Amino acid sequence: MQIKDVGEFGLIDRLRKIVKSESKNLFLGIGDDAAVVGSAKRKYTLVTTDSFVEQVHFNRAWATWNDIGYKAMMANVSDIAAMGGIPEWAVISLNLPDKTNVKDVEDLYRGIGLASTNNGVHIVGGNVSKASVTSLHITLLGSADKVIPRSGAKIGDVIAVTGTLGLAHAGLRIFQKKLTSSRNNLGRTKFLRPEARIKWINVLIRNKIKVNACIDLSDGLASDLGHVCKASGVGAVIDLSAIPVAVATQKVATMAHENVMDYVLFGGEDYELLLSMSKKEFIKAKIVLKQNIHAIGFATRDKTLKVFDGEFRTLTPKGYKHF
Amino acid sequence: MQIKDVGEFGLIDRLRKIVKSESKNLFLGIGDDAAVVGSAKRKYTLVTTDSFVEQVHFNRAWATWNDIGYKAMMANVSDIAAMGGIPEWAVISLNLPDKTNVKDVEDLYRGIGLASTNNGVHIVGGNVSKASVTSLHITLLGSADKVIPRSGAKIGDVIAVTGTLGLAHAGLRIFQKKLTSSRNNLGRTKFLRPEARIKWINVLIRNKIKVNACIDLSDGLASDLGHVCKASGVGAVIDLSAIPVAVATQKVATMAHENVMDYVLFGGEDYELLLSMSKKEFIKAKIVLKQNIHAIGFATRDKTLKVFDGEFRTLTPKGYKHF
Repeated sequence: MQIKDVGEFGLIDRLRKIVKSESKNLFLGIGDDAAVVGSAKRKYTLVTTDSFVEQVHFNRAWATWNDIGYKAMMANVSDIAAMGGIPEWAVISLNLPDKTNVKDVEDLYRGIGLASTNNGVHIVGGNVSKASVTSLHITLLGSADKVIPRSGAKIGDVIAVTGTLGLAHAGLRIFQKKLTSSRNNLGRTKFLRPEARIKWINVLIRNKIKVNACIDLSDGLASDLGHVCKASGVGAVIDLSAIPVAVATQKVATMAHENVMDYVLFGGEDYELLLSMSKKEFIKAKIVLKQNIHAIGFATRDKTLKVFDGEFRTLTPKGYKHF
Repeated sequence: MQIKDVGEFGLIDRLRKIVKSESKNLFLGIGDDAAVVGSAKRKYTLVTTDSFVEQVHFNRAWATWNDIGYKAMMANVSDIAAMGGIPEWAVISLNLPDKTNVKDVEDLYRGIGLASTNNGVHIVGGNVSKASVTSLHITLLGSADKVIPRSGAKIGDVIAVTGTLGLAHAGLRIFQKKLTSSRNNLGRTKFLRPEARIKWINVLIRNKIKVNACIDLSDGLASDLGHVCKASGVGAVIDLSAIPVAVATQKVATMAHENVMDYVLFGGEDYELLLSMSKKEFIKAKIVLKQNIHAIGFATRDKTLKVFDGEFRTLTPKGYKHF
């Protein structure tokens, strides 16, 4: 059954059932000219938006519709995490060719719904339009009592990251180079179904640990660190040997005859957090997050990005570029 | 100069300058992982989103980039008007082919910016992605103290509309059929640069006039009245002779050898408001809005849509359908 068989409003009725959720603060969900919600849980309202375009952001040969929906929502949740917030409400615009199968759109919404439920997000509205290429466009609202901007890094701060880096890029390379091995599941899972670090950033906030700046690693360490440094008016030195890398990531790089440091520095979509904080706050963060946070360098007065691997080298950002 | 020459972040820097705006309630605008705003001006937060896809929602042969941006923002503002709210913050996702001219995107943003400024909207964030087809996706936040839903129409209510109907469709037909006449400017302007009825709905609210249900006329009277009736569990009878039609609309229909009532009933994108209210409230509305509101029928117990033009006929919705 294709969506032209059920029509725009028939499709919306089906999708509404999949992501139906209730909240005492939700007054009017999908189906009116606008959604109506009450005041945000925390003082400041956060708004972020992202597009996911077929063949640019996702490839149907590698990902199920469910995967695509899950990752799209998670990328938005990750932006809220990077601000030190909690996600609350989302609206979704779908652009679909009229030959799209209803079942595929429902699967997409199941993925969106799962990532939403797991993170306390309610889908409150959206829009369906015809288009020649499939794309989805999510706007996520969240809130925070204290916002962590990109621009707050201070000279001498510890630069830290959550999780391990490069694993999502390893997953991408598995698909691109058709690598197979029993060890590859970690990379594939990280690439297809990343987890935003909402819980971890909120553990830091609950423990009153002061984070000066934060960004989520969507474009790649070099590029995203560059954004933080530029916004903060600082530079950074990163110790390559201190960057946490999973064994699975190294294995994929070896199989692909590639340098794992290229995965780590330039591979995007890990959706880990990069944080800048004083040494004292980092030590506290290390205690509450255990092995989930690692210091990888320092913010410097010299406004350049450098890496250290026995000697200092200038790091040129080359993350994913749209244009 | 094409956008690949300035890159994603170079383009964002240019667009930010065009829609730069300040508000004491805006804490962090374009350029971080999320925008940060303070509490809404009114009690309830409204969220609406819309997509505008080239060749589906707009045609570059008829509209300038400035027109396209203006209309896209206005369509969202119209949704906030239909809820009885005021618009406040917007985020915009742009999907652009990499051969797009920088100047064109800047013109698009000037149109978005003008419609925003005229309606008190601040552009606080967005996203730029590569795509094979140009599209823009706007999410607009607003607020309202008392929300007007689609679902509140009561049996016996007056069904009223603002402005005149069918003029945007007349504008569309001028372009489609290459009609020319000095009288055609009104239709072209209505089609290319519609005005959302934010001021009028807020005049009603300030004057404490109770509107039971409201929708904006984006799909066409028959279709949008159908949404209100379905959501409210009522039917409606519309007196065709009572529907306000501009002379310019009739002229275009005559030139095109078409029935102007098809424009009025099934033509979309007028962005006028359809309101349902008691007779008593309608009389008050007529006083404060003067000739800008017209009663065109009544809500009925019988759950069908009928028109009266000497005899009663069943009205079958056939507004714009995406699928």
